[in-house]
Amino acid sequence: MSGRVAAGIDVGGTKALGVLVDEQSSSLATLEVPTPLEGEPLLDAIADLVPELVRLAGCGVADVSGVGTGVPGLVDPDGVLRFAPNLPAVVGLGVAAGLRHRLAAFGLPQSAQVVVDNDANCAGAAELAFGAARGVSDAVIITLGTGIGGAIVAGGTLVFGANHFAGEIGHMIIDIGGEPCACGKRGCWERYASGSALGRMARVAAAEGRAPRILAAAGGVVDSIRGEHVTDEAAAGNPEAGELFGELAFYLAQGLANIAGVLDPELFVLGGGMIRAGEALLAPANRCFADLLEGAEYRPVPLIVGAHFGFQAGAIGAAALALGAARA
Amino acid sequence: MSGRVAAGIDVGGTKALGVLVDEQSSSLATLEVPTPLEGEPLLDAIADLVPELVRLAGCGVADVSGVGTGVPGLVDPDGVLRFAPNLPAVVGLGVAAGLRHRLAAFGLPQSAQVVVDNDANCAGAAELAFGAARGVSDAVIITLGTGIGGAIVAGGTLVFGANHFAGEIGHMIIDIGGEPCACGKRGCWERYASGSALGRMARVAAAEGRAPRILAAAGGVVDSIRGEHVTDEAAAGNPEAGELFGELAFYLAQGLANIAGVLDPELFVLGGGMIRAGEALLAPANRCFADLLEGAEYRPVPLIVGAHFGFQAGAIGAAALALGAARA
Repeated sequence: MSGRVAAGIDVGGTKALGVLVDEQSSSLATLEVPTPLEGEPLLDAIADLVPELVRLAGCGVADVSGVGTGVPGLVDPDGVLRFAPNLPAVVGLGVAAGLRHRLAAFGLPQSAQVVVDNDANCAGAAELAFGAARGVSDAVIITLGTGIGGAIVAGGTLVFGANHFAGEIGHMIIDIGGEPCACGKRGCWERYASGSALGRMARVAAAEGRAPRILAAAGGVVDSIRGEHVTDEAAAGNPEAGELFGELAFYLAQGLANIAGVLDPELFVLGGGMIRAGEALLAPANRCFADLLEGAEYRPVPLIVGAHFGFQAGAIGAAALALGAARA
Repeated sequence: MSGRVAAGIDVGGTKALGVLVDEQSSSLATLEVPTPLEGEPLLDAIADLVPELVRLAGCGVADVSGVGTGVPGLVDPDGVLRFAPNLPAVVGLGVAAGLRHRLAAFGLPQSAQVVVDNDANCAGAAELAFGAARGVSDAVIITLGTGIGGAIVAGGTLVFGANHFAGEIGHMIIDIGGEPCACGKRGCWERYASGSALGRMARVAAAEGRAPRILAAAGGVVDSIRGEHVTDEAAAGNPEAGELFGELAFYLAQGLANIAGVLDPELFVLGGGMIRAGEALLAPANRCFADLLEGAEYRPVPLIVGAHFGFQAGAIGAAALALGAARA
């Protein structure tokens, strides 16, 4: 093993994705496990990914120079996850401290960095340092998974806010009194434009007989359909999935237009699991967005592109942060 | 006349407020005129304020070191107003060039700075340099007038975005398919929480007999009631107006909570004409906001305060920009 390696783990509301990368952010190994619902099992699952990843890559935990973890919620500067609507049982969890302890027991060198940040900040750090937002002064990186997260680049640097909680864009209210959300409010953007929303739309479509191939992909059981089924079918060119992404894009564009008004970015970079749908997501999103942007005829319209690191942007960014190769 | 003076003009959708200030941003004279609806008459009205202001202050146009103007819409770096939903007849107007020409004819020295920026950016510059946001790293300054504008401070500096259009927060959609807006979309925040919205709420209340004193203040004609009547009555302690501000605060807080999620500011600073209502606006706004902020129990809740320069923040900030005493 030449050069330094780091593990990055992107914890979503449904799955946790682990990668092992080198200093060039090239992936040496990847692994995916379901996300446990409670705090201590969650920390165990994250920590356990590290020896598994190094085994796949043919090295040992002692070779690891850093472990980065992205979590979907409000992470304070001490690596404590204060609140995460899509992990409702996890409040006030000391992620950084809990991982340091577990990883030391696995033989992680004392010199290794253990860093924890918001999942979208991790994706943003990767895309800003090495990816689609490289060299862009004003951009917003958005993760579309179980929920929606964001990282904001303004004037060439990431924006963190007063408490390191900036970028919680998924809970922007776009429909007062609308769908109830796990955060306790109603009408949040992620109720309409996340992977969970896509799954709900697909279940409605399947129950109405409009999505037979997606239904088949989910084993013929309407209630088993999830966003991932639609994303997989879209990636495979299934027009049923294309229809659903067209429906979702309308809602996705509402939030993007809101953010464009607030921040005037040059670029939106979409990551998270849903970006595996590629153009089935990006084409209708760009189309709907141009209709909703304030003064669209009188200004440059920001472009919406896929993350350079695709759905792995969060995990790769977490690893890059731990290596000091990117900054957040 | 000792020291330098500058004129600042804050152009709203209804009125234009002019001030003459010294280098300490102390006001030497103020004037208010209705906002003309068309471009050339608008430029005439803005320019005409300058000789009037210096006359009131007992000096001449030749004594003026700078003229700053804030306009309510998308202003590009060349001082062209690209688009302004609340001035629908004014699109692509070269405000800076048109004012330079007119002011030169009035005897403005060639050395004087003529600057044009978004109205909320002007207010933000004043509050950041001398006012309520001084020394605050992350804040959002919001102007509540005919529409809603915003200026964003992140990491101690103003955020402008890729095209200098950041802070267009009034057209954030908070209610998909809701009230039609002058911008061409539906459900924009400023349809629910601006001075125009306040006027509309008051007309409904008056027609239902719930606002007899406000109705009397508007000459007994329901259709004559405007937001200013409610603001004036609130400032005078009329409980009818307090009720209406309580209603408005619910909608105001929706947008503030959205922005808090995106930017995680320490502070919101409210300016614009509506801030003359003082605590009648601030108290219910703070109350409703805490109910809507994501994870409010698990994080510091940003404070909502009034602008140090009150409803004059935009005009004073425009003048300070022209003097080089503040930056935007």
